[in-house]
Amino acid sequence: MLSERNEIVVQAVAKTRPEPGADLVNWNVPKPGPAEVLIRVSAASICGTDMHIYSWDEWARSRIHVPQILGHEHAGYVESVGSEVHHVQPGDYVTAETHIFCGTCYLCHTGNAHICRNVEILGVDRNGTFAEYLAVPASVVWHADPRLPPKAATVMEPFGNSVHVVMKAAVPAKNVVIIGDGPTGLLAAGVARAAGAAAVWNVGLLDDRLEIAAELGAHKTINASHEDPVALINRLTEGLGADVVLEMSGAEVALQQAVDMVRPGGRVIAFGIPARPLSLNTADLVFKEVELLGLVGRRIFETWHQAERFLPQVDVQRVITDEFPLSGWQEGMDKLLNRKAIKVVLYPGQ
Amino acid sequence: MLSERNEIVVQAVAKTRPEPGADLVNWNVPKPGPAEVLIRVSAASICGTDMHIYSWDEWARSRIHVPQILGHEHAGYVESVGSEVHHVQPGDYVTAETHIFCGTCYLCHTGNAHICRNVEILGVDRNGTFAEYLAVPASVVWHADPRLPPKAATVMEPFGNSVHVVMKAAVPAKNVVIIGDGPTGLLAAGVARAAGAAAVWNVGLLDDRLEIAAELGAHKTINASHEDPVALINRLTEGLGADVVLEMSGAEVALQQAVDMVRPGGRVIAFGIPARPLSLNTADLVFKEVELLGLVGRRIFETWHQAERFLPQVDVQRVITDEFPLSGWQEGMDKLLNRKAIKVVLYPGQ
Amino acid sequence: MLSERNEIVVQAVAKTRPEPGADLVNWNVPKPGPAEVLIRVSAASICGTDMHIYSWDEWARSRIHVPQILGHEHAGYVESVGSEVHHVQPGDYVTAETHIFCGTCYLCHTGNAHICRNVEILGVDRNGTFAEYLAVPASVVWHADPRLPPKAATVMEPFGNSVHVVMKAAVPAKNVVIIGDGPTGLLAAGVARAAGAAAVWNVGLLDDRLEIAAELGAHKTINASHEDPVALINRLTEGLGADVVLEMSGAEVALQQAVDMVRPGGRVIAFGIPARPLSLNTADLVFKEVELLGLVGRRIFETWHQAERFLPQVDVQRVITDEFPLSGWQEGMDKLLNRKAIKVVLYPGQ
Amino acid sequence: MLSERNEIVVQAVAKTRPEPGADLVNWNVPKPGPAEVLIRVSAASICGTDMHIYSWDEWARSRIHVPQILGHEHAGYVESVGSEVHHVQPGDYVTAETHIFCGTCYLCHTGNAHICRNVEILGVDRNGTFAEYLAVPASVVWHADPRLPPKAATVMEPFGNSVHVVMKAAVPAKNVVIIGDGPTGLLAAGVARAAGAAAVWNVGLLDDRLEIAAELGAHKTINASHEDPVALINRLTEGLGADVVLEMSGAEVALQQAVDMVRPGGRVIAFGIPARPLSLNTADLVFKEVELLGLVGRRIFETWHQAERFLPQVDVQRVITDEFPLSGWQEGMDKLLNRKAIKVVLYPGQ
Repeated sequence: MLSERNEIVVQAVAKTRPEPGADLVNWNVPKPGPAEVLIRVSAASICGTDMHIYSWDEWARSRIHVPQILGHEHAGYVESVGSEVHHVQPGDYVTAETHIFCGTCYLCHTGNAHICRNVEILGVDRNGTFAEYLAVPASVVWHADPRLPPKAATVMEPFGNSVHVVMKAAVPAKNVVIIGDGPTGLLAAGVARAAGAAAVWNVGLLDDRLEIAAELGAHKTINASHEDPVALINRLTEGLGADVVLEMSGAEVALQQAVDMVRPGGRVIAFGIPARPLSLNTADLVFKEVELLGLVGRRIFETWHQAERFLPQVDVQRVITDEFPLSGWQEGMDKLLNRKAIKVVLYPGQ
Repeated sequence: MLSERNEIVVQAVAKTRPEPGADLVNWNVPKPGPAEVLIRVSAASICGTDMHIYSWDEWARSRIHVPQILGHEHAGYVESVGSEVHHVQPGDYVTAETHIFCGTCYLCHTGNAHICRNVEILGVDRNGTFAEYLAVPASVVWHADPRLPPKAATVMEPFGNSVHVVMKAAVPAKNVVIIGDGPTGLLAAGVARAAGAAAVWNVGLLDDRLEIAAELGAHKTINASHEDPVALINRLTEGLGADVVLEMSGAEVALQQAVDMVRPGGRVIAFGIPARPLSLNTADLVFKEVELLGLVGRRIFETWHQAERFLPQVDVQRVITDEFPLSGWQEGMDKLLNRKAIKVVLYPGQ
Repeated sequence: MLSERNEIVVQAVAKTRPEPGADLVNWNVPKPGPAEVLIRVSAASICGTDMHIYSWDEWARSRIHVPQILGHEHAGYVESVGSEVHHVQPGDYVTAETHIFCGTCYLCHTGNAHICRNVEILGVDRNGTFAEYLAVPASVVWHADPRLPPKAATVMEPFGNSVHVVMKAAVPAKNVVIIGDGPTGLLAAGVARAAGAAAVWNVGLLDDRLEIAAELGAHKTINASHEDPVALINRLTEGLGADVVLEMSGAEVALQQAVDMVRPGGRVIAFGIPARPLSLNTADLVFKEVELLGLVGRRIFETWHQAERFLPQVDVQRVITDEFPLSGWQEGMDKLLNRKAIKVVLYPGQ
Repeated sequence: MLSERNEIVVQAVAKTRPEPGADLVNWNVPKPGPAEVLIRVSAASICGTDMHIYSWDEWARSRIHVPQILGHEHAGYVESVGSEVHHVQPGDYVTAETHIFCGTCYLCHTGNAHICRNVEILGVDRNGTFAEYLAVPASVVWHADPRLPPKAATVMEPFGNSVHVVMKAAVPAKNVVIIGDGPTGLLAAGVARAAGAAAVWNVGLLDDRLEIAAELGAHKTINASHEDPVALINRLTEGLGADVVLEMSGAEVALQQAVDMVRPGGRVIAFGIPARPLSLNTADLVFKEVELLGLVGRRIFETWHQAERFLPQVDVQRVITDEFPLSGWQEGMDKLLNRKAIKVVLYPGQ
């Protein structure tokens, strides 16, 4: 019951001090407001953003206010709903869009709620999902697909990144290069294949990850440690270049490589986030009439609908390499930081 | 007559040696092939590309083979046509698309002839228009609008740049920043206004040029020597940023400024060509979901049709500041290099 | 105060019986819910939809439940707001989107709230605006432009129709035919001109209305009583056809005319609503590759933002021909039914 | 040798009299002009257009001038080329776009050569492919994919119809209904699946054809003789309607069915050509904001490139049911008219 829950104390992984690291702490279960939903979190997964906050890099220092619970990816069951919430019921199996939008700014007004001027991100600007309970506005709750177990449902949010990127790239009948062997890059291989790409070529650094890309749908994988991806793509396309390049690594050289390997009139998606400004030969953009599109998050909720439709063709669980009870979070984080894990799922209830 | 003309020697401005400068030389009138058209050039105008070739900069050294006649902008009358040319007749008043496309490569096949893989540019890859006669393939000939005198018709090619940029920017009901006070940037003010922009703000460095932008349609002009355009645009848009920014200067700082002043979800057109790779904070592109579109030339011939339709609203002659007989080419070139002239028209027949 | 207002009785124009006509009745001021806003209506205007309900035609009989207050176009001041309303304050000058959307269906989720599966239209599915007070969900409230008096602000909703139609037609550098001389057709002339059309040609039946189209921006007007618009458009376009035709009359012959006068590859917007199924030569659609786009309402709130941006160029008040206190509603309705008025404004507070 | 070939007499299927039927006749091999290519036809296939001409229906009577060789689908080898032809060589394995475009009209200028104002269609406006030799302008010659035998290469032209329709429908993550069990409708099932559709539902009248649709990729087939496709699609989509409906039958009721079964905001492609104007409830188009796009032919040559890219996923030969030497044309035509055959290939050289 909502009123009683209000007093319950649960465990959570939180940033408690403005320095590297995080702690497993006790936390009061929040009381949801009239337009909010309280979710009992069954599964939560660790994203690159959580790693930035854990590592306390420059971006994290400028954005995060402690103390705060980490995490934004999750799936669970509705515990209770506020008085003004009508489309969600206690017991519903849910996840949520992690960009909490205001609904009234110019960007929300014009179909761009995911880049809302007043956006608050779970686990970044407010308490996150690495806890047994989570309160979110009803406006961001998404009814999870009942075909999916919680560990898959928690991956739907980053899978939505992959879907957003591929859909914006417009891939049918095109050859598509994907740079990056993180979970969104690997899942993008599956989405690109399902969305009609004629050829999907994944570029990465780790062979075991590239094998997963191949399983998910890549026609060919390229280990950039061993061969020059620009030269290879040029050869594969008889000097023309690829129709579309999805830059999903954030590596400093990757965007220039993307511009170098895309064909005239082609499209480059910038999704990976470089740590600092990079050098780019923008004359190439001009002479080749390249479209370079920055993308972030997912369209709310268009991408969520699309993501569900791709599920029969893309096994989102294929990127889950490790599962821990919440108390095992440190091991999961360490494996991710060492690139020994791809996607780590935590179980707060355990 | 074609056979007789074949022997005639005319004056031309040509690059004769691989070093800075150019010369007024005697040149044999070319004999057009079966699919070509011989044009008697009434007017030709000097473009930034000609200035690069004259100055013999790095790009010019890598691309130009001497000896070669300079120039690509022009207007004139058809002198004769080859045996396989049917839609152009001797006496027709014409100008021409300056990107000579092959018609059979992948890019030509898919509606992108202006970035043809085998493109040859007049005055860059083959003899140009700073001469009394010019032979071009019939496929690039454009019947000039009879409303226009030759000095206006020769400007239709760079005007097409402005039209291409504005049309790709999709400006109706939007506020539009134009960076650059060269002829294409100034004309873009007129096109943006005619094409339905709600506000047109031109950024430049020279007040006399910004006055022309205002006359052509800019609601506001900003001299970047005196005020910070990014701060000003932010203030004008209440912190949101402009819907669209057209970077038409090629200045090294301009593209980052464009990204800084565009709103989330907005569009930046990269048309200006920086002299070297530049530093760009591409994380801004990502977080703001900016579309950065490189553009070059004009669509063949869609842009030409559109350009004619904008003529009643945009006085293309407003950017012509100087006119010379062909023999006065050096003075025109000097004024352009010193930014004392905007668009210089040469009259080869005089 | 909300609690006191709850008891107040005001005058309203309502459909009280399932038959033609309407009545001026006394009505209890509604009490807004927690997510609602109570608006004191300064001005309301009569739309074609109100005329259908008044006349009690087949559509009205199938859709309307009596008793119900008529009207949806309006402008006024916020009297009070519910406890969950935060972005609107008492005293705010407002109007509202008249399509009340659910926010949670597939169409709302994917950027199409204006065709929400559960839409309720003011004055159609719930009590409307022909009354001194009106309660609407806060989600549809729009802050009216302070430049506009209430009689202009009430016209922003149908003006939004014109804007939606023109923006979807993509008019820059195109020639545009507008069929229909009702208020949305006339205003569309102004919008098309402001949005960059190269030529705007309005087709109607009444010369005095076509004069208004010309004042608002039409380059040419065509009285279809006197000349065949298809033949004329063909002549004006040298047999090619118009780039875009906006069918905003609902006349039975108009859509076939639109298809006949549009050029191959052109676009026809169907906005007018014919009284019954009509005969259409759809082979013409195929052979000419015509795009026939049905449109209704306005995009929420993208179109509202665009509409405000066009205000400096389009005098929306130009279509207001008559103004009455609410008690004069019958005269206004009669003039509209006899096509003696174009847009009639009622003042409920008077 | 060209000069010798000029005298050779070959067999051809031609319409010789303005009445139903056709004849196997002797015909002089044409001499190609300087910009033409002479093709020795290895295989040609019969299209619905040929059936209209054979049957001498109203459309055929108004368009066809006798005597004329029938047929436009084909594949073969280049025998000789005109003096101005450079990108095609004798011996090349080719087929051709069947819409011969002028290259200089407004539609050709703006990327719509397939609806060229001066279009001439092979076998409709000039001699066709049901003959051992065929002369076509070099501008329409397409190098056939060497992976394909002639009987598959001749099907690439109608396969291009399917590709054009599906690409314009933008199917990734969408559910797609295809109405029509002719060869283009069946092949569209394969293309829709390959191009990323989430669900493909084919509607037809013949179970054996629907089985082919299923083999090519349809998730579900619906025999409209036995069940109401509108009711079924509504049920499958929980009352929302399908995202996209491809009307490829030309049946008189089909377009209204398409509008009835598409969801609000959805897209209907009109590709099938009804024999006469039909009754359409266009108010449905308006209230549902349906996009109804007429399509014909294929984009030149964008669709051809796309079609080749879909070949690994779509077995175009699956719709070929019958093969005859040219002399067996009558049997093939009869089977098609009786719907006993789907695609009939003729071998002129045999």
